[in-house]
Amino acid sequence: MAIDKRVVVLGTGVVGLSCGLVLSRQGYRVHFIARDLPEDSTSQGFASPWAGANWTPFYSRDEGPRQAKWEEATFARWVSLVPSGLAMWLNDTRRYADTDAGLLGHWYRDTVRNYRELPPSELPKGVAAGAAYDTLSVNAPLYCQALARELQTLGATFERRSVSSIEQVFEGQDDIALVVNATGLGAKSIAGIEDSACHPVRGQTVLVKSGCKRCTMDSSNPEAPAYIIPRPGGEVICGGTYLVDDWDLSPSASTAQRILTQCLALDPSISTDGTLDGIHILRHNVGLRPARTGGPRVEVGKLTLPLVRSTEPGTALALGTARPAPAGASSEAVGAPSEAVKREVTLVHAYGFSSAGYQQSWGVAQDVLGLVEGEIGPPRAWWTQRGKL
Amino acid sequence: MAIDKRVVVLGTGVVGLSCGLVLSRQGYRVHFIARDLPEDSTSQGFASPWAGANWTPFYSRDEGPRQAKWEEATFARWVSLVPSGLAMWLNDTRRYADTDAGLLGHWYRDTVRNYRELPPSELPKGVAAGAAYDTLSVNAPLYCQALARELQTLGATFERRSVSSIEQVFEGQDDIALVVNATGLGAKSIAGIEDSACHPVRGQTVLVKSGCKRCTMDSSNPEAPAYIIPRPGGEVICGGTYLVDDWDLSPSASTAQRILTQCLALDPSISTDGTLDGIHILRHNVGLRPARTGGPRVEVGKLTLPLVRSTEPGTALALGTARPAPAGASSEAVGAPSEAVKREVTLVHAYGFSSAGYQQSWGVAQDVLGLVEGEIGPPRAWWTQRGKL
Repeated sequence: MAIDKRVVVLGTGVVGLSCGLVLSRQGYRVHFIARDLPEDSTSQGFASPWAGANWTPFYSRDEGPRQAKWEEATFARWVSLVPSGLAMWLNDTRRYADTDAGLLGHWYRDTVRNYRELPPSELPKGVAAGAAYDTLSVNAPLYCQALARELQTLGATFERRSVSSIEQVFEGQDDIALVVNATGLGAKSIAGIEDSACHPVRGQTVLVKSGCKRCTMDSSNPEAPAYIIPRPGGEVICGGTYLVDDWDLSPSASTAQRILTQCLALDPSISTDGTLDGIHILRHNVGLRPARTGGPRVEVGKLTLPLVRSTEPGTALALGTARPAPAGASSEAVGAPSEAVKREVTLVHAYGFSSAGYQQSWGVAQDVLGLVEGEIGPPRAWWTQRGKL
Repeated sequence: MAIDKRVVVLGTGVVGLSCGLVLSRQGYRVHFIARDLPEDSTSQGFASPWAGANWTPFYSRDEGPRQAKWEEATFARWVSLVPSGLAMWLNDTRRYADTDAGLLGHWYRDTVRNYRELPPSELPKGVAAGAAYDTLSVNAPLYCQALARELQTLGATFERRSVSSIEQVFEGQDDIALVVNATGLGAKSIAGIEDSACHPVRGQTVLVKSGCKRCTMDSSNPEAPAYIIPRPGGEVICGGTYLVDDWDLSPSASTAQRILTQCLALDPSISTDGTLDGIHILRHNVGLRPARTGGPRVEVGKLTLPLVRSTEPGTALALGTARPAPAGASSEAVGAPSEAVKREVTLVHAYGFSSAGYQQSWGVAQDVLGLVEGEIGPPRAWWTQRGKL
């Protein structure tokens, strides 16, 4: 019996895994190809292990209507995960900003729980505006590993492979219906994508062992952002930095000192004795947020293979030889376009989420499902019935 | 029967593997701990997979007497590996420089074979000085994997673990005699080392499938270095860049174009038809050379554990809590200095080799063996006899 073609998901960060899981649950056959797999929780080229992974919007609804929708969908999912321990409530989270606009028009006051604007008497010195609410966090690496386990249960497969060109995904494969491109920063230089709008936003954090339960997000000084994010497992992430186009993977001692000093002032309970010396540091982390000028890209894209190298975006880094061999010629060269047969392939892009990958992931995955269905139709009926879980 | 304590080697790049192999052959029990293992040949935080790995000195004997000695030792080893196919001769290699000083006083004319200065008539236009000689290259990832196989045969063990502090290596272990620190760029931020002289020198290259057999190293334009390095396996590495303090891991299309244009002018045989379009590209690579201001560090270092965080170099990024618990107090916190017992540990440092890790690796490993023997003495006799292979 013929079976459905596969959907290949490129990338196993939180966005790729969420897309794959929503597709798998719908009955699609999903295969992952990625340089880093969910168990690679210390791989620094991989953004997902390093995230704070709390739910806190960065844009007003006017600035980011798509983002707001994705975030609402993810919030609902995370609420449902609280009993499992994968997500936890962050009650009475404090958010501080330098202007009232920094509170984003309070659009999510009905999404989170117990939202209230803080009166000046409840604001730290020097903070212009603030709000308190109950929101959620997940433990980034454990959350991704849980997504991967559910995917394996549903029959999804994982292949560790570093891809430099979209062409390598399709090479010798005739059962790929579509590729979901969740490559994060990889989208900057994978041939067939080469999206020059992609760039890193470097984040340095300190992972702390602490009983502290309150989340604080202080953006009141844009030069020196500070945040404290408790997560499942008795751990707290203290941050941070948002350094655009900075690829430096090594933690800076002076930055760590600055972060901890500010976080301690915000909430002395991160320390066992209220001093810097009493902060129990588990790790110093650096992660590169996969950002994109103009915002996330979630849309269908078509590509003609073989790629022919040119100065056009998306093809300059193509592999193989740029000159297709004449008809009838044979070539043993790996990756060379050995025949002139052209082929159009379909991608669904899902990358460029910067700081917001976790909190947007589930909503993005639902949009990606819609795009996939629009391109290749629903999975076969028999498979759907089997796959509806 | 009591057995020897272990030597832990931190890092499985070419330097760590070579040190481990020389120590294993001598009879030491060797255990590797590393974030990236030799099979991780596409991990970009890992410098070794991306090297050109040809033997070509960068310093005169006066500027780098240690380097020259290490390089001579490695050359001799590589000659012995030619029959195995792990190393290959690069006959009639061409080296071009902007001044006669760029030929480094010709110190290695008796190390390589058939060394001769090139007369002006044999120099490309615009090149001031040049030499031709027979040297060697290895295929970087295959070479490292071969070292790892020999190590496994000798009983060395490999543990995949990312270490943020030297303390984590010793935690709960009482059979570690000494740690060889071959962490490359990691030495910049691992607590207990925190060597601020470490920095990346970014290299972008294009891996090409080609029958080209001649190596060309053109440093005549310091702004735009170009090199062509054939390696075992019918592959050629075209480079390159030497960008100090640049951590950007994404290949640049314009840089790739610049590299290939220059390399094609140097040697049209990298292309099937003499044009850019006829160059068969296998991959675009970026690697971060683990450089160090002041040159490589190969020496013994002592460290007192537990580390206590302070502004002193080597301890600011220490983990755990900075304040040792009072005597008699107990702590369940991971990594916390739960008792006041101090312990001095010994490191042998071997890092900071920048572009020259491969060509210096074997000589460095011999020096490291001497330092290890000086610190902990030779391996036990019974073990030595068993281990002498």
